[in-house]
Amino acid sequence: MRKRSVSPDWFRQEPPRHSYRAVFKWGAAGRFHHPKSGLIRLLQAQLGWTAETWRPRQTGVAEVRAARPSRLAPEQIERLTAMVTPENAGQDDFARVRYAHGQSAEEILQLRGELPAPACDLVLHPRNKQDVQDIVQYCHAESIPVTVFSGGTSVTLGVRPAHGGVTLVMSTHMRRVLAFNETNQTITVEPGMFGPEYEKYLNQAPEYFQAGRRYTGGHFPQSFEYSTVGGWIATLGAGQQSSYYGDAYDLVISQEYVTPTGSFVTAEFPAAATGPKVNDIMKGSEGAFGVLTAATLKIFRWMPANTQRFAYMLPDWPSAIATAREISQGEFGMPSVLRISDPEETEAAVQMYGLGSPVAQALLRLRGLHELKRCLLIGQSDGQAGFSRHVARRSKSICRKMGGLWLSGYPVARWAHGRFLDPYARDDLFDMGILIDTLETTVTWDRLEKVHSGVRKFIKARPRTLCLAHASHFYLQGTNLYFIFIMPMTGVEEYRRFQNGIIEQILSHGGSLSHHHGTGKLMGPWMEAHLGAEQMAVLRALKRHFDPRNIMNPGGTLGLDGGGVLGRTK
Amino acid sequence: MRKRSVSPDWFRQEPPRHSYRAVFKWGAAGRFHHPKSGLIRLLQAQLGWTAETWRPRQTGVAEVRAARPSRLAPEQIERLTAMVTPENAGQDDFARVRYAHGQSAEEILQLRGELPAPACDLVLHPRNKQDVQDIVQYCHAESIPVTVFSGGTSVTLGVRPAHGGVTLVMSTHMRRVLAFNETNQTITVEPGMFGPEYEKYLNQAPEYFQAGRRYTGGHFPQSFEYSTVGGWIATLGAGQQSSYYGDAYDLVISQEYVTPTGSFVTAEFPAAATGPKVNDIMKGSEGAFGVLTAATLKIFRWMPANTQRFAYMLPDWPSAIATAREISQGEFGMPSVLRISDPEETEAAVQMYGLGSPVAQALLRLRGLHELKRCLLIGQSDGQAGFSRHVARRSKSICRKMGGLWLSGYPVARWAHGRFLDPYARDDLFDMGILIDTLETTVTWDRLEKVHSGVRKFIKARPRTLCLAHASHFYLQGTNLYFIFIMPMTGVEEYRRFQNGIIEQILSHGGSLSHHHGTGKLMGPWMEAHLGAEQMAVLRALKRHFDPRNIMNPGGTLGLDGGGVLGRTK
Ligand SMILES: Cc1cc2nc3c(=O)[nH]c(=O)nc-3n(C[C@H](O)[C@H](O)[C@H](O)COP(=O)(O)OP(=O)(O)OC[C@H]3O[C@@H](n4cnc5c(N)ncnc54)[C@H](O)[C@@H]3O)c2cc1C
Ligand SMILES: Cc1cc2nc3c(=O)[nH]c(=O)nc-3n(C[C@H](O)[C@H](O)[C@H](O)COP(=O)(O)OP(=O)(O)OC[C@H]3O[C@@H](n4cnc5c(N)ncnc54)[C@H](O)[C@@H]3O)c2cc1C
Repeated sequence: MRKRSVSPDWFRQEPPRHSYRAVFKWGAAGRFHHPKSGLIRLLQAQLGWTAETWRPRQTGVAEVRAARPSRLAPEQIERLTAMVTPENAGQDDFARVRYAHGQSAEEILQLRGELPAPACDLVLHPRNKQDVQDIVQYCHAESIPVTVFSGGTSVTLGVRPAHGGVTLVMSTHMRRVLAFNETNQTITVEPGMFGPEYEKYLNQAPEYFQAGRRYTGGHFPQSFEYSTVGGWIATLGAGQQSSYYGDAYDLVISQEYVTPTGSFVTAEFPAAATGPKVNDIMKGSEGAFGVLTAATLKIFRWMPANTQRFAYMLPDWPSAIATAREISQGEFGMPSVLRISDPEETEAAVQMYGLGSPVAQALLRLRGLHELKRCLLIGQSDGQAGFSRHVARRSKSICRKMGGLWLSGYPVARWAHGRFLDPYARDDLFDMGILIDTLETTVTWDRLEKVHSGVRKFIKARPRTLCLAHASHFYLQGTNLYFIFIMPMTGVEEYRRFQNGIIEQILSHGGSLSHHHGTGKLMGPWMEAHLGAEQMAVLRALKRHFDPRNIMNPGGTLGLDGGGVLGRTK
Repeated sequence: MRKRSVSPDWFRQEPPRHSYRAVFKWGAAGRFHHPKSGLIRLLQAQLGWTAETWRPRQTGVAEVRAARPSRLAPEQIERLTAMVTPENAGQDDFARVRYAHGQSAEEILQLRGELPAPACDLVLHPRNKQDVQDIVQYCHAESIPVTVFSGGTSVTLGVRPAHGGVTLVMSTHMRRVLAFNETNQTITVEPGMFGPEYEKYLNQAPEYFQAGRRYTGGHFPQSFEYSTVGGWIATLGAGQQSSYYGDAYDLVISQEYVTPTGSFVTAEFPAAATGPKVNDIMKGSEGAFGVLTAATLKIFRWMPANTQRFAYMLPDWPSAIATAREISQGEFGMPSVLRISDPEETEAAVQMYGLGSPVAQALLRLRGLHELKRCLLIGQSDGQAGFSRHVARRSKSICRKMGGLWLSGYPVARWAHGRFLDPYARDDLFDMGILIDTLETTVTWDRLEKVHSGVRKFIKARPRTLCLAHASHFYLQGTNLYFIFIMPMTGVEEYRRFQNGIIEQILSHGGSLSHHHGTGKLMGPWMEAHLGAEQMAVLRALKRHFDPRNIMNPGGTLGLDGGGVLGRTK
């Protein structure tokens, strides 16, 4: 019999109007996906918690107060408001706070504290490129800071208006399709379009655009439902099928920008030998160079009938790494989803994906696949039917050769089903005083294990702390490492110190400062040391060119300037 | 019976020492590959030439004279010479002219004129990064122009020292392997390494590096034998197997640069979300930002046994385009070689690849494949055995569906055999007063036919002019177009006007200024209009940052500055 776990008394109300909770709660106000019982059992066992400790606290239901009144002059507010019409401007505390926050643990902890909160001075919802141009020009003339907010799912303080000023909300109106080109397999959209909308237009291209086929954008970050095309590009995001479809960097064919010193659109050539590519230079600029107002992206044939799924249990972490490397370097095409979980994450997955039954456990052990050694690999292939079959066949054969036990495609289906729902559970854990957060990095194959063990060691040195890690975006030369850590913690300062420590460990062992979350104002303080003074000087030269008065997302973005009062420091 | 063609009286001597011919002759001094009889027959038929007109002229056998003496001060020459040691410095006319010339038709025509030739002031052969640093620092302090010469196969006046100064020859000493990393599948080399050397190290990795496997770099430009890794990166080149392996832009993981304002090396991460990528910003900088002193590139498993080849004759140009597009967008992996020839190039290929016999001709006609309508497609797939087979199978099935006639793999083998030899024949044609040159561009699928027909119309408006065109580098969104034109012509000014006209046609019909030849000083004058003022301003901001005194490859490179006396104008 499966052990039944406690069902904690989750906080189940919609966030009160204008509350702190309405700022930080994930997703739709009335939608909840509480932690699965597997996860709860794990937390009970590992964190030593009992049913009694599961009581909601710091739920942030109080009404939002901004830390200070707007500092813009009435004349400035009037002029800016007129540009977008009054119904598209917000000056109240709630609007000013709501659009000043992303989804980092730091911001969530602060909001739950119900203290007067960081706020911009004026929220504007531009209706089109012309509005953006008017606003940016005016703010440039008046030296008013401009921060761009799109989906607001940044986990790196990307949308924090460190010096106040105007926040432009791109996702209210600027979410239209501008062009669909089936011949070139591209779509041009405004940057505020959310993931599901984007995918809907492509999947239903015959209905929307009289296209001959159905398409997919191939970009599925875990934040898919609430992040936008513009945010993906601005932060250099990566979706869960990036190993086949590519990262956001690879997907963008051309872009239109409005900057303080001018507007331009890059040409739609898939390649060209006409010097350094301005289209690529703008990617990842995180709102510090200008505002992305349109983007043309690659699209792919959508053929869900061809999807193949597979999952294996491998003997240990080294064999899981070797398997993933052989798949990545095998030159038979790439699976779209490929994910290897380290031993601790594997145990969590065993609980959550229905492999935790005594029978299954005994079977695994019988095959020499032991707890806290064994590693889960899940994969999915896509593309043309024969291609997808071949990729799956080859991948499976490699898994088998490395001693993997076939687990059917079921765990992948489970994973796929829950992949956009898991963020909802984060709110529940925070309600219970349990902090869950992630940090991620890129590693070359030869440093993977060094970074993994070094970072893990640091995290696990903290008592009662879970550390689940996986690699899920693969390249010929390496992969990413994604660390999830879970522990009882509610103090902002305590968390900052802990988080800083992890970042230092990642860097000192040879990982990159970020694989797909961007740097925002969170990673800013490490940028100079990470890239080196010469390369930071290149980014600063670009910054000076586009934004000589430092009005675009100032206060630490990309480490281009200092953090200021609201900025982040090490 | 096959019609026997004349065998012209080719110029068969090695270039005299220190002659103009020694500067421009392709490849090894004693090596010749005269035009195939198929090409000669074609020229006879199309250009109306007879055996009597085949007489070598303007062969450039006179001894080189530089247009002017060196303008560097004796003290400067002494200091610079000491940096590399005297044996690595050249001041004589031949050295100064030889390393001031690439392989553009314009340069070749000028050299054949045996007039006093453009020259740099001093040739230096740096031995290592330190030498490069010393030289660049000194030249920066003294405001002496620095031009980088590597393989010298530039066809865009890339190595022309428009303002004299120092020319750095990278390919003399700086051609070593610095690191080989089998785990990450990367190799780090100095930039002066030639194609065959690079490929030899990789193919023979077990012998050189005790590697477990054999590798390939996957980059095979037609200039492969005499171009270098650094040149590929600096000009954003593309090899003949780029559709699978990627362009030079895609192959480069990290780089080391020496610039007037500092030196740096970019990190070896296969991806990262830490802002705009300085590694990518430097690619394609054509020596105008600094000197590339080391590069780490992706390598691939070398599995020649898995190569599959196929060739088809398609009914017409639209069906050839549709076939290539379906292959490129079919999502079953890409062939490494894919090339579609337009009707005129197809007729040339029919002659040259042994399809010209009366029997073959009759057979083709019988199948409805008529002269000057039918189009040749050749392809090759590589990679893991099953992958390569699948790519070939799918490609073939698409060819058949589009009405293609299977021609076996023989034409591909013929093409592969001759692909690095054809450039030798260029010297022979020029000897006969026949100019052969090429221009190339990128097109999206929806503009392919517009650019093709527009440019062709312009070229064919000139009497007695062959125009062969093909597309050979494929992407989801489009391809390149490569125009070869052949006509009797010897005048530099006449040619410039004609070439300018073609460039204008490419641009006015919506092609890019270059797909893989770079821009050099030849395309410089069109850059501003092509990219637009705002994007040129970005490149100029970078230029100012790296090279505030404009010493690096000045005189029109990338259109960053004016052409000056030796520069190119429209
Ligand atoms: C639960 C959760 C899961 C996540 N999973 C993933 C994942 O799997 N993969 C991944 O890549 N990321 C992930 N993220 C991070 C985040 O979703 C991404 O960074 C996303 O790309 C941000 O998009 P957004 O529209 O929310 O942008 P925002 O958060 O609104 O903005 C992000 C940054 O981009 C700038 N910006 C946005 N739009 C523009 C524009 N039009 N012009 C100029 N600058 C602009 C902003 O100023 C800000 O600096 C996750 C986040 C959460 C909370
Ligand atoms: C017959 C023929 C066929 C060709 N076929 C192809 C083809 O198929 N594909 C293709 O892409 N190109 C082709 N080209 C063009 C040419 O070969 C490429 O541009 C090649 O990449 C140049 O390499 P290189 O070593 O000869 O460079 P060079 O000609 O020596 O230099 C080219 C440019 O790069 C700069 N440069 C070189 N090395 C460095 C360095 N270390 N640091 C900074 N700047 C540097 C130079 O200053 C110059 O501006 C062909 C040329 C010819 C003549």
